[in-house]
Amino acid sequence: MTTRLRVAIIGTGFMGRMHSHAWRTAPRFFSLSPAPEAALLVGGGPERTAAAAAEFGIPESSADWRTAVTRDDIDIVDICTPGHTHAEIALAALAVGKHVLCEKPLANDVADAERMAEAAAAAAASGAVSMCGFSYRRTPALALAKRLIDDGRLGRIRHVRAQYLQDWLTSPDAPFTWRLDRARAGSGTLGDIGAHSIDTAQWLTGSAITGVSATLRTFVESRPRLDAHIGLGGSADADAPREKVTVDDAVAFTASFADGALGVFEATRMAAGHRNANRIEINGELGSVAFDFSAMNELQFHDAQLPSEEQGFRRIDVTEPGHPYAGAWWPAGHGLGYEHLFTHQTVDFVRAITDGTPARPDFDEAAQVQRVLAAVETSAADASRYTPVEGARS
Amino acid sequence: MTTRLRVAIIGTGFMGRMHSHAWRTAPRFFSLSPAPEAALLVGGGPERTAAAAAEFGIPESSADWRTAVTRDDIDIVDICTPGHTHAEIALAALAVGKHVLCEKPLANDVADAERMAEAAAAAAASGAVSMCGFSYRRTPALALAKRLIDDGRLGRIRHVRAQYLQDWLTSPDAPFTWRLDRARAGSGTLGDIGAHSIDTAQWLTGSAITGVSATLRTFVESRPRLDAHIGLGGSADADAPREKVTVDDAVAFTASFADGALGVFEATRMAAGHRNANRIEINGELGSVAFDFSAMNELQFHDAQLPSEEQGFRRIDVTEPGHPYAGAWWPAGHGLGYEHLFTHQTVDFVRAITDGTPARPDFDEAAQVQRVLAAVETSAADASRYTPVEGARS
Amino acid sequence: MTTRLRVAIIGTGFMGRMHSHAWRTAPRFFSLSPAPEAALLVGGGPERTAAAAAEFGIPESSADWRTAVTRDDIDIVDICTPGHTHAEIALAALAVGKHVLCEKPLANDVADAERMAEAAAAAAASGAVSMCGFSYRRTPALALAKRLIDDGRLGRIRHVRAQYLQDWLTSPDAPFTWRLDRARAGSGTLGDIGAHSIDTAQWLTGSAITGVSATLRTFVESRPRLDAHIGLGGSADADAPREKVTVDDAVAFTASFADGALGVFEATRMAAGHRNANRIEINGELGSVAFDFSAMNELQFHDAQLPSEEQGFRRIDVTEPGHPYAGAWWPAGHGLGYEHLFTHQTVDFVRAITDGTPARPDFDEAAQVQRVLAAVETSAADASRYTPVEGARS
Amino acid sequence: MTTRLRVAIIGTGFMGRMHSHAWRTAPRFFSLSPAPEAALLVGGGPERTAAAAAEFGIPESSADWRTAVTRDDIDIVDICTPGHTHAEIALAALAVGKHVLCEKPLANDVADAERMAEAAAAAAASGAVSMCGFSYRRTPALALAKRLIDDGRLGRIRHVRAQYLQDWLTSPDAPFTWRLDRARAGSGTLGDIGAHSIDTAQWLTGSAITGVSATLRTFVESRPRLDAHIGLGGSADADAPREKVTVDDAVAFTASFADGALGVFEATRMAAGHRNANRIEINGELGSVAFDFSAMNELQFHDAQLPSEEQGFRRIDVTEPGHPYAGAWWPAGHGLGYEHLFTHQTVDFVRAITDGTPARPDFDEAAQVQRVLAAVETSAADASRYTPVEGARS
Repeated sequence: MTTRLRVAIIGTGFMGRMHSHAWRTAPRFFSLSPAPEAALLVGGGPERTAAAAAEFGIPESSADWRTAVTRDDIDIVDICTPGHTHAEIALAALAVGKHVLCEKPLANDVADAERMAEAAAAAAASGAVSMCGFSYRRTPALALAKRLIDDGRLGRIRHVRAQYLQDWLTSPDAPFTWRLDRARAGSGTLGDIGAHSIDTAQWLTGSAITGVSATLRTFVESRPRLDAHIGLGGSADADAPREKVTVDDAVAFTASFADGALGVFEATRMAAGHRNANRIEINGELGSVAFDFSAMNELQFHDAQLPSEEQGFRRIDVTEPGHPYAGAWWPAGHGLGYEHLFTHQTVDFVRAITDGTPARPDFDEAAQVQRVLAAVETSAADASRYTPVEGARS
Repeated sequence: MTTRLRVAIIGTGFMGRMHSHAWRTAPRFFSLSPAPEAALLVGGGPERTAAAAAEFGIPESSADWRTAVTRDDIDIVDICTPGHTHAEIALAALAVGKHVLCEKPLANDVADAERMAEAAAAAAASGAVSMCGFSYRRTPALALAKRLIDDGRLGRIRHVRAQYLQDWLTSPDAPFTWRLDRARAGSGTLGDIGAHSIDTAQWLTGSAITGVSATLRTFVESRPRLDAHIGLGGSADADAPREKVTVDDAVAFTASFADGALGVFEATRMAAGHRNANRIEINGELGSVAFDFSAMNELQFHDAQLPSEEQGFRRIDVTEPGHPYAGAWWPAGHGLGYEHLFTHQTVDFVRAITDGTPARPDFDEAAQVQRVLAAVETSAADASRYTPVEGARS
Repeated sequence: MTTRLRVAIIGTGFMGRMHSHAWRTAPRFFSLSPAPEAALLVGGGPERTAAAAAEFGIPESSADWRTAVTRDDIDIVDICTPGHTHAEIALAALAVGKHVLCEKPLANDVADAERMAEAAAAAAASGAVSMCGFSYRRTPALALAKRLIDDGRLGRIRHVRAQYLQDWLTSPDAPFTWRLDRARAGSGTLGDIGAHSIDTAQWLTGSAITGVSATLRTFVESRPRLDAHIGLGGSADADAPREKVTVDDAVAFTASFADGALGVFEATRMAAGHRNANRIEINGELGSVAFDFSAMNELQFHDAQLPSEEQGFRRIDVTEPGHPYAGAWWPAGHGLGYEHLFTHQTVDFVRAITDGTPARPDFDEAAQVQRVLAAVETSAADASRYTPVEGARS
Repeated sequence: MTTRLRVAIIGTGFMGRMHSHAWRTAPRFFSLSPAPEAALLVGGGPERTAAAAAEFGIPESSADWRTAVTRDDIDIVDICTPGHTHAEIALAALAVGKHVLCEKPLANDVADAERMAEAAAAAAASGAVSMCGFSYRRTPALALAKRLIDDGRLGRIRHVRAQYLQDWLTSPDAPFTWRLDRARAGSGTLGDIGAHSIDTAQWLTGSAITGVSATLRTFVESRPRLDAHIGLGGSADADAPREKVTVDDAVAFTASFADGALGVFEATRMAAGHRNANRIEINGELGSVAFDFSAMNELQFHDAQLPSEEQGFRRIDVTEPGHPYAGAWWPAGHGLGYEHLFTHQTVDFVRAITDGTPARPDFDEAAQVQRVLAAVETSAADASRYTPVEGARS
């Protein structure tokens, strides 16, 4: 092992930028030994990638991801590319014993996800650590919810209620993007944001989804094509040539959990007024927790064991020194932002390498999310009939 | 017609008390001509009913509902009894030309509901007015939502998201009541509170639910029997003899609306921390509205036609003189309570009689709710398969 | 004592209407023995008063308040007239042993208030009960706050933060009304709504205000005169003849409490967007409570004795059977409205008569509010200099 | 000018760490040319400072701040030390033409602040830029409020209502720190957090405070001394030797603004339940804005020019591309945290140097805050008498 953990980031888009910020920031606020450093950026085209590397502050760049896998001085391969490329890169990296951090969703189908999970398990035997980037697990408020649930404060879980509401496709003239093309994106809202809700729900409850009854909707069947990208939420000329939308705009499903809880999930990009409302509420026999990413530093906690007259949802400002992750940052009451999820993820991943703490979600857990996504699509195609999740592990 | 509209209230329970308050209060704040007055209370046993009449301030009482139907000096029959008795009383009253206000749900099954709808339509020809008591329509904030939607402020509707969350059955030792017995209650959470969400959703959108995919759950299969009632939320001795629960504790379903919108509905009595969160949110192409009965004087309105930088959900305090119903009461900012729904319902019903304005929901609309309830049960019994609502009228 | 407690209501305005509703409603939901009944309405002109009596459902009317005092069959005189008339009516009623309920503020100056307090104390010796109508004390959420404070849950009180924000005078062209004329109204925002904050603060803390440092502002010095009243919040023709405003639009003051707490008070009718935000927050060594009448069924409670990581303001839905007043009404979660304050006030007043429970605030407590109002005006006229409250009793 | 703007950070505490993060992050998300880099860290003791430099990722360190001033290769001196040291360092740096960013409050008294303002004005003539670090101005939500106000959307301002509520001194056994010693800290709550409210209020309204009427309180007169620091909010042994508290625990004052508005300010460290509630609300004739740092990504905006029935405070999620600062970061709805204020401040400061945009608040504006702080102390010592702010510039 080198004196630094040297990281190759594959991908120069939003996630590549975000991960580079996380690698840069983590060792400044958390004690990591050895500290990681982003050493190589891989992107699509030498010049564009070199420019991105300069912008992100990464010393080297390459237009070939194989460089990251073959170079001996790279310890960690951090995959930030679109989902259909994950399997090939991850399998190659695991084969040579690299640690692999892979953005979500793990893959675009179950078969790829399971191959990746198997390869990760095999590589783990020789010390390679792998983890999937379901970053919302690193929100301090959700990590506090997890702690309360694990401590039995909610008792037996009855209800899981998850909504992931965005609105950037509300206008029928919002422009077409690759995310609306099934060939490239795998699915639409389902895999992009619904996957987050599924992972969060299974992680918080510690219980797998065993079956679903689902509906998918595409409200707007074509959208204006754009030569020049005009940004999220922008509108194109209504008379522009239109491209066919081949993925879902929205998904809704009910779910059974292994522990008997009832889940209700909804994800959409057409909920006017909700920029990024990633919400989850869990009700148990002894209490409830509720979270909305629109107020990411807060957890609502209801303790049903208090006297009835004193009960109520309690707004916990999850910025105390004793709260998960929060102690490394500012004094209580000085909230964190979206990027901190990625910094925390980096910290947890590095510690899994250096200290042997578990890397979660590992590829097997991430493959379980993929199995749920597949069951949702199967059910939706079969008149919403209840569809067991194949191979679910509870 | 007498100089007063004389009302017979059938039922001395919670709803009987509430309706008597509404009849007493309505003419003091709204101009009604002729004014109504509660003249007769009908209950189960002469002495108990006489005592209730004294308490409610109603001059006469009877233990036989037929009195209300046969007496010539009664103009309005107001049915506040459990659902399985509605049809018989309503049909008898309509047959002799009485105006009928009937509590929700209209009946315990579709067949009864449709017979009632037919009888109401026939009686309407000779001037009898009938209406079903889906009281939440009379919440000023929801009536304002309806106005905004009818004015086109939301544009084409995409999403309906309704949750009715209560928690009085959270503890497995909360006592058994008649509401948990299918023979008497028809269904559990579904008909009791889910029915409200269904009516509200169809009314606000002006669009019928055409099909559903549903799940029903009974989390606690038996509950301690009580000789003495110990109140909502109370707990009984865990060792008491237990009675089998034969209705649902919770229901969740996705729904298709005639206009293409996607609905997600959930109702439960086991959502710890939610005493009575009757929530609905509707997202359209041009805006959204959101409501929670826990803050009944507020409507959240999002206008997506404003400049993007100025958009946001707006908390409208629905107490302005120009808001529905509100002008009859206190100055702006001085909120109303639950009982006002019933006073407003009384006002609307009386005006339908005296002024010929529409009485909504009429029995036909109420029967449509019953058809949705039936489709939910059918779907739930058939592995959540998508089930069309028989005879839905959009 | 007659078989009913017969009430004469003096005043046919907003408060007269509200009190008549309270007298009518209280015995239907609370066990009161003997029950009260509104027997006589007194107003300004025989015909107008008779019409109001018919509307309010009161059998008799009179245009002379002395009738209420001289008739033997009247037990309770309920004074709902403007402040400058309170003393004369109350003194006459107390002199003949009537029970007296008097709207706030008790009088327009300290001298009158103190004469009334003395007369009330004297009449109490022979059984006459008197009470001043600071109705906000009867909000269940504030009564719960009082209970928590009395139980020591806040510990030593450090801060009182009270704001009473309205906005109906925001526009400079909102019309002139008698409330803006010092000769008739005594003061402006200060006595009208600031008085509520003062009473609430002293009652909740159980500690008197001993001195103040105050500022009064009149932002709009004249307003258009109206022949016809056009309603709160309405605007008049900007070119209409204008009347001079002789009272304050806004008041702000800091206050010392006898127990050492620091108070910050603000009241205004020009806080755009706040229809009736009557807010108070109290911070103690062990916890805090916060209330906003815009969400009148909620109390925010912070318990600083919980572990730091679990602390947070808790939204208590004050509708439980065990909450003050709430048990008489609807099931938990079905909120109350503004009018309930007056119904509860009626109940407490009647019980003080029939059961000998304390009638609070009595005229002495109400006179203490008047002394604070006077100190505020003195301080404001003396460059905000700290001004002790004369004769404050802690 | 060098190819980079080389920065010396003076101070290794919380603010030193925060500023180093800001210098590191700013050029990765904002286009800055030349980009800044933290080149030198100055602290109290060579070894401790060298360790901090390693932790912060700064290549050089020194234990003598004069190094930063005398070295030619330093362009910017960034002062993050306690207030009593600001003047000496800033004056020395300005004298040799360095750009100076100085943490707030500018100084511990008016005389020092004014000397600094004069020096800054003189140095500006030869191109030196200076700015005081009132970081809350860089909150996107407050910057949006400023834009709305400047655009006339609030009309004439009537009310400013600012509260800065913390609770880390709630317990009387919270330990003594240097912040409670007047000799070192200048003042207590007043200068530490009250100063932020004063700057924000004057900046947003564009109007100076011309006079105040104030009260200061020290609720807990001594606190246990600690050898080892035990952290904010921690409690010490109650029997430990106690140190005298010589600063204020809380401050409250009313204020007059040059444009006629009425201000009410309160700051405290004993408001149980409020970790860091930096709140400000401004009411104008045409609308209002309200902000609470506890929800730092939101601005509440009330537009009183909308139809009355559609009015309400609107929760704007200030994360749109068109919002101040927000476009440089994540997609809409993905909020920022506390540290972003400092990154934005860095960006604004660098652009003032490179592009000649105004550096605000400059030392003159910061001195105006100091004059208000002085007037508050004078008024508090003079029975809260209204005290003009000496030399206020509107």
